Amino acid sequence: MSPFKTIRGMRDFLPEEAAMLRFIESKAREIAKLYGYEEIITPVVESYELLAAKAGEEVRSRMYVFKDLGERMVALRPEFTASVARLAATTLRNKPKPLRLYCIGSLYRYDEPQKGRFREFWQSNFELMGSEKPEADAEIILLTSRLMEAIGLKGYSFKINNIGIIRGIMDKEKLGEESQNRAFQLMDKKMYEDALGIIKNAGISDGGLKTLKQLLEIKGNSVQNVIGEMEKLLENNDEALKPLQKLEKILKIVLSTQNLNITIDAGFARGLEYYTGMIFEVYVPELDIAIAGGGRYDRLVEAFGGEPTPAVGVAHGLDRMMLALKEQGATLDFREQCKVAVVPVSEDLTIEAVKISERLRSEGIPSEMEVVGRKISKSLEDADRRNIAYVVIVGEKELKEEAVVLRDMRKKEQKVIKINELAQKIKASGI
Amino acid sequence: MSPFKTIRGMRDFLPEEAAMLRFIESKAREIAKLYGYEEIITPVVESYELLAAKAGEEVRSRMYVFKDLGERMVALRPEFTASVARLAATTLRNKPKPLRLYCIGSLYRYDEPQKGRFREFWQSNFELMGSEKPEADAEIILLTSRLMEAIGLKGYSFKINNIGIIRGIMDKEKLGEESQNRAFQLMDKKMYEDALGIIKNAGISDGGLKTLKQLLEIKGNSVQNVIGEMEKLLENNDEALKPLQKLEKILKIVLSTQNLNITIDAGFARGLEYYTGMIFEVYVPELDIAIAGGGRYDRLVEAFGGEPTPAVGVAHGLDRMMLALKEQGATLDFREQCKVAVVPVSEDLTIEAVKISERLRSEGIPSEMEVVGRKISKSLEDADRRNIAYVVIVGEKELKEEAVVLRDMRKKEQKVIKINELAQKIKASGI
Repeated sequence: MSPFKTIRGMRDFLPEEAAMLRFIESKAREIAKLYGYEEIITPVVESYELLAAKAGEEVRSRMYVFKDLGERMVALRPEFTASVARLAATTLRNKPKPLRLYCIGSLYRYDEPQKGRFREFWQSNFELMGSEKPEADAEIILLTSRLMEAIGLKGYSFKINNIGIIRGIMDKEKLGEESQNRAFQLMDKKMYEDALGIIKNAGISDGGLKTLKQLLEIKGNSVQNVIGEMEKLLENNDEALKPLQKLEKILKIVLSTQNLNITIDAGFARGLEYYTGMIFEVYVPELDIAIAGGGRYDRLVEAFGGEPTPAVGVAHGLDRMMLALKEQGATLDFREQCKVAVVPVSEDLTIEAVKISERLRSEGIPSEMEVVGRKISKSLEDADRRNIAYVVIVGEKELKEEAVVLRDMRKKEQKVIKINELAQKIKASGI
Repeated sequence: MSPFKTIRGMRDFLPEEAAMLRFIESKAREIAKLYGYEEIITPVVESYELLAAKAGEEVRSRMYVFKDLGERMVALRPEFTASVARLAATTLRNKPKPLRLYCIGSLYRYDEPQKGRFREFWQSNFELMGSEKPEADAEIILLTSRLMEAIGLKGYSFKINNIGIIRGIMDKEKLGEESQNRAFQLMDKKMYEDALGIIKNAGISDGGLKTLKQLLEIKGNSVQNVIGEMEKLLENNDEALKPLQKLEKILKIVLSTQNLNITIDAGFARGLEYYTGMIFEVYVPELDIAIAGGGRYDRLVEAFGGEPTPAVGVAHGLDRMMLALKEQGATLDFREQCKVAVVPVSEDLTIEAVKISERLRSEGIPSEMEVVGRKISKSLEDADRRNIAYVVIVGEKELKEEAVVLRDMRKKEQKVIKINELAQKIKASGI
């Protein structure tokens, strides 16, 4: 591998893309503020044990794991929730609930690179801890949809399920947790036959298997129909009915508040092992990977030594949302380019030119100083090419009158302006 | 090690600290805009070879290095410049110069944790590539000072040198590059005797050693005196005089523009191996570690296979600047707390309460929905403790009139308000 390239699966964001990612990040921060979430920043490097505990085999096998110089087994975080749960179990243990926390940053998984999937990726992650109520689940869905609106995404839709329903069936059949988790991993990859194989081997009854098979097929947009169908199928299983009713309540709150495109999919599972209740993902037609996903994890904080803390959260894939925007042809340019250049006519006027640049900046006017000693004609050419609006030409003659030449690059006109009036003049032009 | 703690040298930023760090980051972005720098985002994980190439032994020995699952030798970036130089040597190779680029993010070094020194730390990093002129060096110093002003730091001062001066002496004596680099590493740690030992072993002449010893002692605030003293000492060494004159020019530009506290220190060196010219660091009296540092590195882009590209840059230690602010007793609170809570009187009014919360958010009013099903008295207590300004109480009676109760928590007064007028009413209160 050449040392002069990014390593496989990693990437650079050039100014245009960096600006777009930061725009999406700023919208996530606005949403956080609107819903009362406060930011925490947790480390990229955490103990492997913490990150591996409830991540599930799929994520666990793709973590960046290594020993640090102190022989500690550490890993780069593949997701945020373990770190936030760690905080909730320790430092924030005695804080009054609910806790509304968000994180924004980069995450690491050794996945096979493909469209929209990189080994370093970016998320905003919202966690609502301390409530088991459906309005908490609804809040996480509503704020996610509001974020998608805020960045201008079109045609996004939600896929939703309650993992507790399938767990209810499997619990009633007394299937071991390990088998359940393996089955969910396979369902997450849409390998339903293999998942059913595992469940069969784990000793499910014929009746249970039949119910499960039928359940996994149920899917649709009409809440009433789909929930009704599931209710009928599960009428003798209280352990599965309860999470179904919870899902119904969540959907009722969400759909009476925002007009969302939601598909209930009884066979939908997610890779992370810690989910206990409602799970969801967000898609756009242009991409076949989820651009956001989340769910309820009521036992994770406890598993990390904290108080029992029901919780629900979501991760928004910021760089995937960026890709989705691009795929939808969003032609937004978020770069903030400098509009003023300051150019000395000769080298011995450099100090005066720097002074004038600094003065403009003090007035809040972004200004680029000519630092490569080009001739004035070259500087003007360059300014033209880069859409600089004004060039301030610092010449000896004008300086004697405490003035400079201000050249309007679009109108191709120039005027002598007193240095005192320069900032005001440029501001008045409204660039 | 407990899996439920951050690993040694890593840390969490709780909301108050996260907000302070983001405030400093936002100021760095403002400065970038004022000086015409555009953001790039490079990966945390890069090839070890790239990061190790010119980092210097000190940094190299403290890097987080490991093999990824594809057996690539990779490392967590200990600094930004190698990555930016990689980009300048490859993707940005043909972009017109100068390039003004900045990065903001986290970096990793396995240092011994101490006050202000963590194994994960945060920087804003500015690079000006394509100019060898003193006004480029001056720009990097000026923007750094402007950033310190912008965050409200007091009493900060610059330490400055030109590493080319000592190199000039050593080059004249034909000392090998490896010995030179080892000597600089030791000077960086103020181990001057050991550095001189290395230089002696490398075969310096008695006259050269005497000059060097005298040079390393020169230090002071008065540019004229210090530069004069150095010039006299080096009068027979053109290779050392040239960088000295360059330093003088840089200082002249900087000091005619901003009134900075600058100490010239002829014995000052920095750990990174790639510096070729001016180097500087920023200090505050309250901390004995630098809060920012940078310098000129004219051969790095070329070393990475790019065109010869003179360059100068700076890294601002964002979390150290935060610590410096704290040490100076800055009592700023950057948290943006929610000022409105929405509480349903009973569970069956949840949907109405969520709807009202969403409506307020659509009007740009941050609102927290009650999601833990507390009694109204408990919700009010909690709102009081958390300095919530208004509680919107959603009750059946008022809902029939399309109204809610708006309670002003400070005045301890409440009024019935039409839902239609709620947002306007809250906005008018100016919270």
